[in-house]
This record gives sequence, structure tokens and C-alpha cells, in this order.
Amino acid sequence: MDSPWDELTLAFSRTSMFPFFDIAHYLVSVMALKRQPGAAAVAWKNPLSSWFTAMLHCFGGGILSCVLLAEPPLRFLANTTNILLASSIWYIIFFCPCDLVSQGYSFLPVQLLAAGMKEVTRTWKIVGGVTHANSYYKNGWIVMIAIGWARGAGGTVITNFEQLVKGGWKPEADEWLKMSYPAKVTLLGSVIFTFQHTKHLAVSRHNLMFLYTMFLVATKITMMITETANVPFAPFEDTLSRMLFGWQQQFSSCEKKSETKSSFNGTGSSTSKPIAVASDTVKKKHTKKTE
Amino acid sequence: MDSPWDELTLAFSRTSMFPFFDIAHYLVSVMALKRQPGAAAVAWKNPLSSWFTAMLHCFGGGILSCVLLAEPPLRFLANTTNILLASSIWYIIFFCPCDLVSQGYSFLPVQLLAAGMKEVTRTWKIVGGVTHANSYYKNGWIVMIAIGWARGAGGTVITNFEQLVKGGWKPEADEWLKMSYPAKVTLLGSVIFTFQHTKHLAVSRHNLMFLYTMFLVATKITMMITETANVPFAPFEDTLSRMLFGWQQQFSSCEKKSETKSSFNGTGSSTSKPIAVASDTVKKKHTKKTE
Amino acid sequence: MDSPWDELTLAFSRTSMFPFFDIAHYLVSVMALKRQPGAAAVAWKNPLSSWFTAMLHCFGGGILSCVLLAEPPLRFLANTTNILLASSIWYIIFFCPCDLVSQGYSFLPVQLLAAGMKEVTRTWKIVGGVTHANSYYKNGWIVMIAIGWARGAGGTVITNFEQLVKGGWKPEADEWLKMSYPAKVTLLGSVIFTFQHTKHLAVSRHNLMFLYTMFLVATKITMMITETANVPFAPFEDTLSRMLFGWQQQFSSCEKKSETKSSFNGTGSSTSKPIAVASDTVKKKHTKKTE
Repeated sequence: MDSPWDELTLAFSRTSMFPFFDIAHYLVSVMALKRQPGAAAVAWKNPLSSWFTAMLHCFGGGILSCVLLAEPPLRFLANTTNILLASSIWYIIFFCPCDLVSQGYSFLPVQLLAAGMKEVTRTWKIVGGVTHANSYYKNGWIVMIAIGWARGAGGTVITNFEQLVKGGWKPEADEWLKMSYPAKVTLLGSVIFTFQHTKHLAVSRHNLMFLYTMFLVATKITMMITETANVPFAPFEDTLSRMLFGWQQQFSSCEKKSETKSSFNGTGSSTSKPIAVASDTVKKKHTKKTE
Repeated sequence: MDSPWDELTLAFSRTSMFPFFDIAHYLVSVMALKRQPGAAAVAWKNPLSSWFTAMLHCFGGGILSCVLLAEPPLRFLANTTNILLASSIWYIIFFCPCDLVSQGYSFLPVQLLAAGMKEVTRTWKIVGGVTHANSYYKNGWIVMIAIGWARGAGGTVITNFEQLVKGGWKPEADEWLKMSYPAKVTLLGSVIFTFQHTKHLAVSRHNLMFLYTMFLVATKITMMITETANVPFAPFEDTLSRMLFGWQQQFSSCEKKSETKSSFNGTGSSTSKPIAVASDTVKKKHTKKTE
Repeated sequence: MDSPWDELTLAFSRTSMFPFFDIAHYLVSVMALKRQPGAAAVAWKNPLSSWFTAMLHCFGGGILSCVLLAEPPLRFLANTTNILLASSIWYIIFFCPCDLVSQGYSFLPVQLLAAGMKEVTRTWKIVGGVTHANSYYKNGWIVMIAIGWARGAGGTVITNFEQLVKGGWKPEADEWLKMSYPAKVTLLGSVIFTFQHTKHLAVSRHNLMFLYTMFLVATKITMMITETANVPFAPFEDTLSRMLFGWQQQFSSCEKKSETKSSFNGTGSSTSKPIAVASDTVKKKHTKKTE
């Protein structure tokens, strides 16, 4: 039982996120905020608004899970230490003279280290969310998955929503329609840890945390080095979608009839869109098949 | 007391919604979702987003009432049975080969049956909402009306809101400004059941449930057969509005002065709008009077 | 201890808001709503929607603080007296023949009296919010500031949000980016009362309430008489921003390099915006200096 492997993973699963990993998370989040065009100007014109946005970037996942569980969304403001930590990082990044931080952050190794540590915090958030949701709903495994997902990747939802309220919404940055890589991998991890929590997965949690974190960090760093926004999930997704929705071909072939039948619902342009998408998805699959 | 009529209504008010009426409700909701242009394409491109939208269409009213009462909006995910039921209906409707379901649903009798059963669930939702709100606020009859209304017709609000977040918002589908027929009839029912609950209406609940449900089903089916989106409420609304806001004529006649006086607030175009609307409402009333 | 001054401030801090000051608050809020172009037309077409908007204008701050603390947003509907009071004021203002109320309200003394009394309620709301938040989080002083701020000035946030949902959103009326005067002064008061509550400010609460209210009323009335939307805060803000973000000059001078370096993020237009804003802020500061 207490093999060196178990000791290693146990020690790993007991590491505290507080000082260093949280700092890395805040650093990456606020840098991502500053990369947005116009963010620096907002920080001058109205520092309070910029600070608020930075807090949303840093604590968005927790806020979303609080909203979904009807807990006070302001709870994240209650642990003053993290707020002050994130605020000071926001202050340094935005108002450091000749923004040395951005210059230092522009070196690749720093980015790799920070991104890797941020991915570690993701695992902790997912596990915390799953456990927290289980304390509410004993066997509501769907809720556990949702809360783990929200804690791990909900920041983007909150941020998009805030941009929507601010009026600076970019509909192509929509998180619902095309899931980003973090959303996908967090959903996967949330499912895994939920099944582990409900004893459907006969793996000890610390081993699972270690392996999942290693997977997260490895994929993230490889993606950053090779600069591919795409994901190693494509084949799995393709097989899964073919397994679940495998009759898309004949479906879409029948679809044209029913589309045209029910085309009184929308303008021609809007109804022509789905057909086009359908046909090109079909085309893609055909090309995949012919390979 | 135990007349056959009472026995009938009691038995009716004790019918469980669970298997069949819920199925009808999910069927109608998801079919309404699929009728939207582009919904089928979204279901292919990102099934998760489509599933989420379908769940919002099926459980929107409950989610809204949870939000208004600060209960976890994810509670609807906790009763796994209904989720799996709705999910399977969503799956069948969207991914059935040569979508047989849509073809079968396109027959009018099926639509009538499903719509009628969905209207039955509306009554149960209103009564549940009123009772639930009463457990929070003993004599907050406004809250009871609001919660009953939200449970019965809040799905459209949630759906519009989700479309807003998704960027696919159609402002002419706005639910606030022009209330749809379900919103109106649900508000009426919520008021009725609230007054019955606060003993201001000397009718036994099961009789009221039976009569209101019959009224709902009858109006819905007649509207579907005669294909009139308009409502048998027009005369009542007209008398009510004339009773409450009867001095619109002289009001609007004075309005022009004050409008022009306070026209420094907005651009000429925006201030000219209300006057135009006012005058044509006045015109309508005049024509009504002359008839 | 019981000097006449203390007796005066104690008696002042014990005045009840209920009948008169609340009426003034509702009057000012609903009149502000009616001043919006198109509001009167909405009140005719759909009185319910107009009533809902009026309630949001009257109780927005409380609703926002309820949302932030995960309390039922419908709680404001539970105290029926205030609802009926605000509803009757809404009814009188919108449907009074030859809208006498607007005509009477157009006299300056009436406006001054109502606005002054509304400012008094602001102090009470801030104190109530701070005390209420302290009952949740013992030493979460950030939460106390936020809740006090939300109760005092959150109505605009709720109103903007409602306009956003309604589709009638004006992005130049954005409350996040450029804080209005009420938002600023309420934030100041919330900070003051929070520090007084956490014993960091050695002033008795009733004195503080009296002085802050006098400050509120005086500034508000002077602003209304001199019709200046700008604030007596400009010099303090300038010194504060120069103290905190004083290196904006050299920051912005370096900024151009890093901007151009990281200009692959956005289109040229969007990245040129911040530089322009930065430079003109720098220009403004230079002119200020040269004076």
C-alpha cells in the first residue's frame, strides 16, 4: 500500500495551492486579461472596473459554482488574503513602470511554468467542486459533474457574461457553441472524478489526481510549444460522435425534406444555414471515410 | 360532499404528472426547440450545447422560480429520472434516423394530444409554485403570484435569456413588452390559485384545478385548430384597461405638451415614437367606441 | 456625552424612513423612469412591464444586494406595504389625468425637496447594507463595502441589466466603465461606514450618518441648482490616481512598444484605441501640470 508511488501521489495530492499555485493562476488570468485590446486603457480610465474584471478572471469559476448552488457570489470576497494577493498581482501587472512584468512574462519558460502551475490548480478546483456538490446532493452525479466543470472552467462563462453586460461582447468568442479546449478537458476531468467519487471508478483519488494533473500539464505545455490551439481529443470525439450520432448522413439526407417542409419558421437565409452546415459536415465525414 | 363531481375532480387533482404528462411536456418543448432554424445544425456541431438548451426549454420555469427564491438552479439536475427522460426524448427527436418523430409529430392529432397534456402540467406547476412560495412567505401574496407565474410560464424568459447570452437574440421575440398568450393565462391562473390559497376564493382547490385545466386545454386546442395566435382575452383586457387607464385620451392629449416640454431628454426620433404609439392607441380606442 | 449636538444627531439617526422618505425615493425613481423616452407608451401598451420596471427602479439596490448575498430577490415583494406604496405612486405618475404630477414635479423646489429626501434614504441603505453584510461575514470588510455600495447605488446596475434583457440597451449608459456621481459617492460612504463599523474610524455612527447625509444633500442640491453633472471629487480623484498610478507617463511611453509588440491580438483599430486614449490622458495631465 505505501509503495513509493503511493507516497509520491499522496504527498502530491496534499500539496497546498495557496501561495504559489494561486499566484501562478492569478498571473496567467490577469495577463490573459491584459492581452485583450483596450484593457490597459480601461485600467487607466477606470481602475475599479479593471480591478473588478480582473477579479472575475481570477475567481470566475468559484463565482459560477456559487451561483449554480445558490451560495453568495460574494463569498470569494470574504477570504481577504486571496483578494489582496490577486489585487496586488493585478496592480503590478497593469501599473508596473515600463511594464516589466509583461516583458518578463513574454519569455517562453516563464509562461510555461506559470501555465503548468495554473493547470495544477484546475485539478484541485474540479475535485473541490465535485466534493462540494456531493455535500449538497447525495447521489446527484449530474450536479457533481456540473459543479466540477463550473469550478474548473466556468471563468470563461463569467467573463463572457461580463463582457456581454459591458456591451463589449464578441459573439465569435461564444463559449456555448464551440467548446474551448479547457472546457472539454475540464468536463472530462469532472466526469472522471465524479465517477471516482461515486465509487464507479476503482482508483484511489490521489493516484487519479496525479495522473490527471500530469495529463493536463503535458497537453498544455505541448500545445503552448507547438502553438496548436487544437486538441489531442479530435479522434476520440470523432469516434464518440460517430458512435452516438452515427446516422448523420441519412439523417441529413432526410433533413432536407423536413427542413424545406418546416421552412415557414424562418427566413430563407437562416434556414439555408443549417442545411449548408449539415452538408459540409457530411462532406467532412465522407472525406474522413475515404482516407 | 362526496358527489360524483367531487370524486371526479379529486381523482383528477391527484393524478401524478410523472411519466406521461411530463413526457408530453418534454416532447412539446423539444419540438418547439427543433422548429427553431439552425437548432438541428447546432445539435450536430455541439450536441452538449443543444442538450443544455433542451434542458432549459424543459425545466426553464423551475429554474426561474429557483433563481427568484435563491434556491440552487441546479436542483432540477438532482432528480436524475426526469433528466434522463428529457435527455432521451431530446436524443430521439434530434438524432432519430430520418427523424420519424418529427414526421409523426407533424400529424395534427398527435400535436393536439401532446399540447393538451402539456397544458395539464401547467396547472400542476402553478399550484406547486404557489404552495412553495407560501411556505417561504406566509402572507406574501405577491410573491406567491410571481412564483406561480414563473413556474408556469417562466420557461420563455429563461430561453430568451439564454439566446441573449448566446448572441442569437431576437428583440421582437421579447417576452417583457408584449406578453404572449401562455404568459397571460398563467398569470391569470396564478392569481386565481393564490386567492384560493389565501382563502379569498371560496372554491375547493381540486374543483378549481379541474376547471382551470379544462379552460386551458379547451382554449389551447381551439387556438391550435383555428390557428389563431390571438386570445379570447381581448374583450376582458380592453374593459380592464379602460377601467384602470380609462383617461388615456385626455392623458395623451396633455401628453403632447409635456412630451415636447421634456423632449430635451432624447433625440427627436425616440421622443416622436411614444407620441405616435399613443395617438394610434387613441385612434384604436376611438374606432372601438364608434363600433 | 448628551450634548445637544449628540441629541440632534441621535434623533436624526433614529428617524424612520418609512412613510415620507420612501415616498420621496419612489417619486424620484419613477419620475426618472418616466423621463426616459418611450416609457409612457410602454405604460399604455403593457402596464405590467412598466410596473415591473418601476419596481426595479425603486427596489433595485435591495435586489442587487439580495442577489449578491444569495437571498431571494423576491424578498422585496414580501413587504406588501412598500410595494403598494410604490405601485400607487407609479400609477399616479403614469396615469394621472393631464399628468398633474409631472407638472407639479417640474417646479424646482419640489424636485429639490424630493431629491434631498431621496439622498437621506441613501445613507440609511448604505448603513443597512454594511450591517447586514457584517452579519454574514464577520470580518469580510470587502463584502461589507460591496453590499453597502450595492444597496446604495445598485439600482442603476439592475436597471441597465433589465434594459439589456429588454434589448433597449444603450452602451453609452454603461455603469461599469464610467462611474456616475451617485456610484462614486455611495462607494465613498460605504467605505466610511465600513471602517466605522470595524472600529477603524473613531466616530460614533449617528454623527457619521448626520455628517454624510448633510454632505450628500448639500452636494446633490448644489449640483441640481448649478446643473453641473460633474462632481466636486475631481481634485481628490486626480491626486489619488496620481498617487496610485502616478507613472502613467513613462508607462504609456513604454506602452507603445509593448502595444505594438502584442498587437497581434487584435485588429489595428482596436489596438490603436488604447494608445489614443493613453496619449490624450497624458496630454490632459500635462495641461493640468502646466496650469
